[in-house]
Amino acid sequence: MSGNSFGKLFKITTCGESHGGAVGVIIDGCPPGIEISLEEIQADLDRRKPGQSAITTPRSEADLIHALSGIFEGKTTGTPILLMAYNKDQRSQDYDNLKNVFRPSHADFTYLMKYGMRDYRGSGRASARETLARVAAGAIAKKFLKQELGVEIISFVEQVGNIKAYLNHSLVEMHQVESNIIRCPDEEVAKEMIKLVEEVRDDGDSIGGVIKCVIRHVPVGLGEPVFDRLNADLGKAMLSINAVKGFEIGSGFAGVELRGSVHNDPFVLENGELRTKTNYAGGVLGGISSGEDIYFRVAFKSVSTISKKQVTLDVDYQEVELEAQGRHDPCVLPRAVPVVDAMAALVIMDHYLRHKAYQH
Amino acid sequence: MSGNSFGKLFKITTCGESHGGAVGVIIDGCPPGIEISLEEIQADLDRRKPGQSAITTPRSEADLIHALSGIFEGKTTGTPILLMAYNKDQRSQDYDNLKNVFRPSHADFTYLMKYGMRDYRGSGRASARETLARVAAGAIAKKFLKQELGVEIISFVEQVGNIKAYLNHSLVEMHQVESNIIRCPDEEVAKEMIKLVEEVRDDGDSIGGVIKCVIRHVPVGLGEPVFDRLNADLGKAMLSINAVKGFEIGSGFAGVELRGSVHNDPFVLENGELRTKTNYAGGVLGGISSGEDIYFRVAFKSVSTISKKQVTLDVDYQEVELEAQGRHDPCVLPRAVPVVDAMAALVIMDHYLRHKAYQH
Amino acid sequence: MSGNSFGKLFKITTCGESHGGAVGVIIDGCPPGIEISLEEIQADLDRRKPGQSAITTPRSEADLIHALSGIFEGKTTGTPILLMAYNKDQRSQDYDNLKNVFRPSHADFTYLMKYGMRDYRGSGRASARETLARVAAGAIAKKFLKQELGVEIISFVEQVGNIKAYLNHSLVEMHQVESNIIRCPDEEVAKEMIKLVEEVRDDGDSIGGVIKCVIRHVPVGLGEPVFDRLNADLGKAMLSINAVKGFEIGSGFAGVELRGSVHNDPFVLENGELRTKTNYAGGVLGGISSGEDIYFRVAFKSVSTISKKQVTLDVDYQEVELEAQGRHDPCVLPRAVPVVDAMAALVIMDHYLRHKAYQH
Amino acid sequence: MSGNSFGKLFKITTCGESHGGAVGVIIDGCPPGIEISLEEIQADLDRRKPGQSAITTPRSEADLIHALSGIFEGKTTGTPILLMAYNKDQRSQDYDNLKNVFRPSHADFTYLMKYGMRDYRGSGRASARETLARVAAGAIAKKFLKQELGVEIISFVEQVGNIKAYLNHSLVEMHQVESNIIRCPDEEVAKEMIKLVEEVRDDGDSIGGVIKCVIRHVPVGLGEPVFDRLNADLGKAMLSINAVKGFEIGSGFAGVELRGSVHNDPFVLENGELRTKTNYAGGVLGGISSGEDIYFRVAFKSVSTISKKQVTLDVDYQEVELEAQGRHDPCVLPRAVPVVDAMAALVIMDHYLRHKAYQH
Repeated sequence: MSGNSFGKLFKITTCGESHGGAVGVIIDGCPPGIEISLEEIQADLDRRKPGQSAITTPRSEADLIHALSGIFEGKTTGTPILLMAYNKDQRSQDYDNLKNVFRPSHADFTYLMKYGMRDYRGSGRASARETLARVAAGAIAKKFLKQELGVEIISFVEQVGNIKAYLNHSLVEMHQVESNIIRCPDEEVAKEMIKLVEEVRDDGDSIGGVIKCVIRHVPVGLGEPVFDRLNADLGKAMLSINAVKGFEIGSGFAGVELRGSVHNDPFVLENGELRTKTNYAGGVLGGISSGEDIYFRVAFKSVSTISKKQVTLDVDYQEVELEAQGRHDPCVLPRAVPVVDAMAALVIMDHYLRHKAYQH
Repeated sequence: MSGNSFGKLFKITTCGESHGGAVGVIIDGCPPGIEISLEEIQADLDRRKPGQSAITTPRSEADLIHALSGIFEGKTTGTPILLMAYNKDQRSQDYDNLKNVFRPSHADFTYLMKYGMRDYRGSGRASARETLARVAAGAIAKKFLKQELGVEIISFVEQVGNIKAYLNHSLVEMHQVESNIIRCPDEEVAKEMIKLVEEVRDDGDSIGGVIKCVIRHVPVGLGEPVFDRLNADLGKAMLSINAVKGFEIGSGFAGVELRGSVHNDPFVLENGELRTKTNYAGGVLGGISSGEDIYFRVAFKSVSTISKKQVTLDVDYQEVELEAQGRHDPCVLPRAVPVVDAMAALVIMDHYLRHKAYQH
Repeated sequence: MSGNSFGKLFKITTCGESHGGAVGVIIDGCPPGIEISLEEIQADLDRRKPGQSAITTPRSEADLIHALSGIFEGKTTGTPILLMAYNKDQRSQDYDNLKNVFRPSHADFTYLMKYGMRDYRGSGRASARETLARVAAGAIAKKFLKQELGVEIISFVEQVGNIKAYLNHSLVEMHQVESNIIRCPDEEVAKEMIKLVEEVRDDGDSIGGVIKCVIRHVPVGLGEPVFDRLNADLGKAMLSINAVKGFEIGSGFAGVELRGSVHNDPFVLENGELRTKTNYAGGVLGGISSGEDIYFRVAFKSVSTISKKQVTLDVDYQEVELEAQGRHDPCVLPRAVPVVDAMAALVIMDHYLRHKAYQH
Repeated sequence: MSGNSFGKLFKITTCGESHGGAVGVIIDGCPPGIEISLEEIQADLDRRKPGQSAITTPRSEADLIHALSGIFEGKTTGTPILLMAYNKDQRSQDYDNLKNVFRPSHADFTYLMKYGMRDYRGSGRASARETLARVAAGAIAKKFLKQELGVEIISFVEQVGNIKAYLNHSLVEMHQVESNIIRCPDEEVAKEMIKLVEEVRDDGDSIGGVIKCVIRHVPVGLGEPVFDRLNADLGKAMLSINAVKGFEIGSGFAGVELRGSVHNDPFVLENGELRTKTNYAGGVLGGISSGEDIYFRVAFKSVSTISKKQVTLDVDYQEVELEAQGRHDPCVLPRAVPVVDAMAALVIMDHYLRHKAYQH
């Protein structure tokens, strides 16, 4: 019942589920003077919501963001910021037949065992709507990092099911990501991905994939060995997103097959600046940012909620056939892209402040 | 300069490098009454140290563990526990030629930029010796979890370079892991792995691999959505280990290709107990332990220190040829196995106490 | 810009000022299943608001509390609880002449130096309205402690200016506290206090005082030596309230004059239970609750905002005469009583959960 | 069993009791580059130890401090610092008759109830020896603050029993504090205090007192409203010291009798700098340092351990007469002076770093 806060200096605490009052976040430790408008935050949220296209869930959630404290005359004041979106769309009747059922691969069972109760409406705190709070907070962090340091964060869909894009992440630009509904910068591969998702949706099934994220212009020195290494905090941030099953940075799992003589990134001079020739490290050395691009991959499993019939148990341990009503996302990847961006921003922001505490 | 603590209730703070005084850890928040002897802790440390076999670094570090507080008459008192091992083996002359060089893929550069100084002896806090503190603390956590809950933690080497073992992790036993120096429970594959490592060593090079860990008998309910999900904290723990580049739980990256109808784990009844038919989830649902085996994989890159000649820059940005002296580990995987065990124990321990705070 | 959270397991994060959107709090780590209604929370808030009587500020703040998450069908769900009250009463024109002035003993100067900006409307985060969030959160903690453990928390005004009440705190009951507007259980002394406050108000001045708090039926064992002693956390909690300048527990400052042979509380048996004959300790021994009544005193300075003319400087360091407009509280003590109650509840709640983590 | 850490960025974790292995501290988050020698740390510790004079406990504890990590070539490295002093003087036979007795006003009972066991040797973690760790860590913080900011911290004994010194704290200098064994800067009053303590000692009794502390040259802006106000963290720090029963800052409890028109500190210009005419605030406004002297008072109760006979209960709840053997301190005040200094330094240090995280 804890665990709803993230960050040490730039600290966010989220609340709210997909039904009931509102979903919100308090940001504590935000520096004063950041120019931010609700429109900017809204833009990031709009990247998140379903109804974006035919490919995702048709349910509409008009998520208008409100700031109830901490922002005054277009700037952060340095006092805690409360951002909120009121929940609408109360189609709880979609969920009536689920009241007493343990949906496979859902958190129903574990939540019931832990809390002694379960919020069967949507998935309570495990639902995707909770990420709205993260994206809202992340928008402010992103703005600061961009203005202050020129940091650029670009996530995109690199894989859906077994369809992979082979991209040079150093060359990907945001407009390419936003150019199609699957958020894959490779137009051709994007088409195949969309086709696959539509097949899956017609089957009443779901599919997973991989999001890649590249972070540019991160200053050298962020990260706190030994436990709060930058890669470790990025990993925790991503693994806290619903449906995430894996995280790898730099050369990741594939890189274990490379020998040290190949995998090492030698130092070279480039325009009087210390750079590395290659970047298998992924921009983090010894847990600290090296100044090179940080890039990592996040694995998302297929969404648990499917229309297809499933056999499971109810709360009396009786076998029951489940056919979930309502509208379901066959592939959560495009919607998760801004969430990965946001979590990356929150980690870099927090570490930047922690690093500043020790600078002259 | 922070980041040296891990855990919220069962909290460890480590200190020390590979040279200078000692490497140690203070454990704060350890329950009283745990029966633990220095021999038990030493046994775990001995699994860690090099000189174990011809395959690893021949340098001997006689790591005798000492308890300087918190243990009285063979039991923990509930007060902070200080565990320490004095550093010996001061072969710092091995490192003299490194004083002014940025070793490729080492933390020299990032540490210098962050701290304004670097401890060129060994790798300072980035060194593998620091993990001694983690293993010592983990030994106490493991003891408690075993006695109190019957929790079993077994890590083993699943892959070295491109040589993979295909094992059913549900059947692996500790004696199998300890039966060969590469710590792979499959005897045949172990032989190939050892052969590869020896080749690599003869080349003066290094190679990476993957460690798999299975945790059995974890009670249902551990994990704190939304940010302190059990899988997220396990991920952070593993990614904080030196040389780790990836973490995946359950079906991980491979699982993204499975459709929901396949990937979902249906609930079934087994001896009156709620179980899942499959376990693609890896024992964690919605960030909370489900009672099924928790299993995950950790990717280790090849060690950065190699004997083979490398070209790099020195602190004046002049090109220099580096041929590292001293004795180096061509493959850190076998020695990292007890470290993975220890970090897993620390995470489960901390979450168990956090969970208990809310039980009746 | 941090420091807006309180508590380790039962953790509250507050936000909001006296002007602008809303004042709110997210409670993270609240156990599920606590029966709580908005009416109960509102009742505690109503004890707080001005306009209660002629003696306090006539400004009305209709503080209707809303719960936007975490409470479902009359019980806490175990997920984060967002409580909020919308700000009304925008008489910011009361403050226009203050825009560029450093009000004596106000946080204007320090806030400007720290944040680079100041919210001249009211006192921003230093204002008394922020305590609404604390009282709302404290109401839930109090409910739990009462139902679960029978804990009783009673604060009252013991001193105003130089007028003191001499009470046996073991005998004070809540209805006595609520029986007059100054919240002093001694009727006669209360009359004198009210008279003094009215004099002070007529002078356009302000006066301070002392609140005493007694906490009954706290179980033995709460408190975490060495730094999170129960008395230390109570002290921090009280000193975080605006205008508080002192905290003393048990025999406090007066007790330093007593010799050990007098001051020690011998153990005696009472109905088979271990008790102490006296209770100079104030219910805390070695930083841990002993089961005896916990009692402490909190010193409040006179409110900084007075109508009387004052000479001060403006932001250009020019001397200026200040005559604050608007309506001001001559004595904050009666309104602070529920705030002291709330902070006490938050500390006991947090320590109770921390203690439970280690019980069988 | 937690609560052994203090600080958020400059964080110390202490361990050890008065018997067994060692007492120690790990400092995490210490900036690199601070010039510090063991002699400097030792000097502060020597101010602490008994045997200093006839007036305090004759038991000698040769507390030689050791640094086992984090300091290299006379400077802090930025990595965690482990400081330790080995326990000697094992006169545990002094305590044999206490094994089964609840000493009045000692933590025996509460510790037993909380931990299920008690370390009857000395007072375990409640003992004064634990403060060695705090003073050692505080020495490093003090050095940094002095060198970096010119901060001066001076604590002294202001009251013993009913004997008070009336001093202008703005004029007190360290050499005056150290000029007599009772650490009162007023020579005449010091003599009376010493006389009183000797009387008390001859009676086999104990007496309490008050320590005052003044902190000069603290930069403006330290402190984090609303909960981590500088005065609140100072209060918590002092209340965590053994035997402390009260804390007041600025005008404290006496000041509540002053009207606002008197108590307010008007702003004035002094040499182009913004100052306050008076300083009833005690250097903290709205929880943030104002640049004026911070001064506060800490109340210490009489020590619980006295030679005089006492009646109490044993663990079987039988009445027993207790006459504590060994050597006891009749007045802990002079020895507590460096502890107050150290805790003040730790608080200012931590808040300075937290403040720096938000500066340009």
